[in-house]
Amino acid sequence: MQKTVLLVHAHPEPTSLTRTLVEVAKTRLSQSGHRVIESDLYGLNWKAVFDAHDFLKRENEERLSFIGESGYAYANGSQTPDVQDEQSKLRQADAVIFHFPLWWFSFPAILKGWVDRVFAFGLAYGYKGAGNQYRYGEGGLAGKRALLSVTVGGPMEDYGGRGINGSLEQILFPITHGTLFFSGMEVLPTFAVYDSVRMTDARVDLAKEVWKERINGLFTDAPIPFRFQNNGDYPDRHQLATDVAPKLSGNLAHLKNPDGFL
Amino acid sequence: MQKTVLLVHAHPEPTSLTRTLVEVAKTRLSQSGHRVIESDLYGLNWKAVFDAHDFLKRENEERLSFIGESGYAYANGSQTPDVQDEQSKLRQADAVIFHFPLWWFSFPAILKGWVDRVFAFGLAYGYKGAGNQYRYGEGGLAGKRALLSVTVGGPMEDYGGRGINGSLEQILFPITHGTLFFSGMEVLPTFAVYDSVRMTDARVDLAKEVWKERINGLFTDAPIPFRFQNNGDYPDRHQLATDVAPKLSGNLAHLKNPDGFL
Repeated sequence: MQKTVLLVHAHPEPTSLTRTLVEVAKTRLSQSGHRVIESDLYGLNWKAVFDAHDFLKRENEERLSFIGESGYAYANGSQTPDVQDEQSKLRQADAVIFHFPLWWFSFPAILKGWVDRVFAFGLAYGYKGAGNQYRYGEGGLAGKRALLSVTVGGPMEDYGGRGINGSLEQILFPITHGTLFFSGMEVLPTFAVYDSVRMTDARVDLAKEVWKERINGLFTDAPIPFRFQNNGDYPDRHQLATDVAPKLSGNLAHLKNPDGFL
Repeated sequence: MQKTVLLVHAHPEPTSLTRTLVEVAKTRLSQSGHRVIESDLYGLNWKAVFDAHDFLKRENEERLSFIGESGYAYANGSQTPDVQDEQSKLRQADAVIFHFPLWWFSFPAILKGWVDRVFAFGLAYGYKGAGNQYRYGEGGLAGKRALLSVTVGGPMEDYGGRGINGSLEQILFPITHGTLFFSGMEVLPTFAVYDSVRMTDARVDLAKEVWKERINGLFTDAPIPFRFQNNGDYPDRHQLATDVAPKLSGNLAHLKNPDGFL
């Protein structure tokens, strides 16, 4: 069945490894009969900074509350057109792939600003005006898949379970768990190409092949086994039940199988 | 002895809790005889997006490599004036306090873009052109202290060791460890005000008092006990020695005392 896939990407150099992987995704998905839509953030000259200009009408003209005004603008159709366009793409998407270089162990600012502005109150958080009732596996983006495709300057050994930087999936936890799963998406294990500052033609070819395989599994691979908020593991919606992963604390406790995560 | 403290802050609303805490810091530090300098990122209309315009002369006009051009511009004085100004403030600072609301479990884009653009190759990474020789406790920002002052919308229980969001310090690890300690800074335990969407006058007053105490300890409190790269724990600069925290993996392994971290 034809699916729609949104590629959100954040590198301005057309020949960069990041953009090369975007092209592979486009081709592979199209060949599989899927529909590809795109947000080329540098090409769009995307406004990264979430500020008062994001709210065309204000609920409170005196004092700027981002949460309050985000909810008001989302509910009342007074968001800016660029944000509405991105939300429209998100709504159409069955899956979203985020392509970016890892900068300071996180999104480049332009991509963080896409999340800050597009993931509105009422859509990605505060769903149905019900506070925290719908989050972590449920919410406005439920039913969609998400996948990070990351280019990393350093070597893989620096990002393993004992690597000096910390493990890549733990570093990305604020994004995979706190942003994408939070808003309801099923998040696949991250795809990473390491040593991106030391690419050769042969390594680029290999990365493309491995990436094609990951794209083939976009709708079938098992997601990261994050715990759903409302499946019993968090009886009060705030903390893990005492009998759930009783010996763990921190981010690993929020996975049904943390061993597979590192 | 008089010290210089740089306050980098990222909220446009002058009456916000974030900005209220900035004012407390200014007053308290001045009363203690310190010199305060400031980067009001919204007030500066800070350009968040790191792009080709950051490099006034290019080493390679054909293909944009951020790492390559960052190093070239830093070494050759061809960075933009706004970035040079911020680096000048950083050089003067004995301590840097980052004031921001936690958006999607990380920096607002405008602050991420301050790091992306200001933490140049040659300064915050690639120090002395020596690859990864100086990082995690050593580097261009060594000898400076850093402290995050975060306003958090949700309740504290969501951010504890068993809280649904993961523990706050683990969520902030890419910033505290991967950005600030990476470039040489001593990073203090994070100061957070939770439930920032439910503030009362009494809670604001309490937050201000607790914050004053933390400011009093800016130059004396013990930093987060991250492991230094070059003190023997990482013999090859990539992975932990097998006898260091042998039962741990992931980010907790990079603390000398992870129990105190959660």
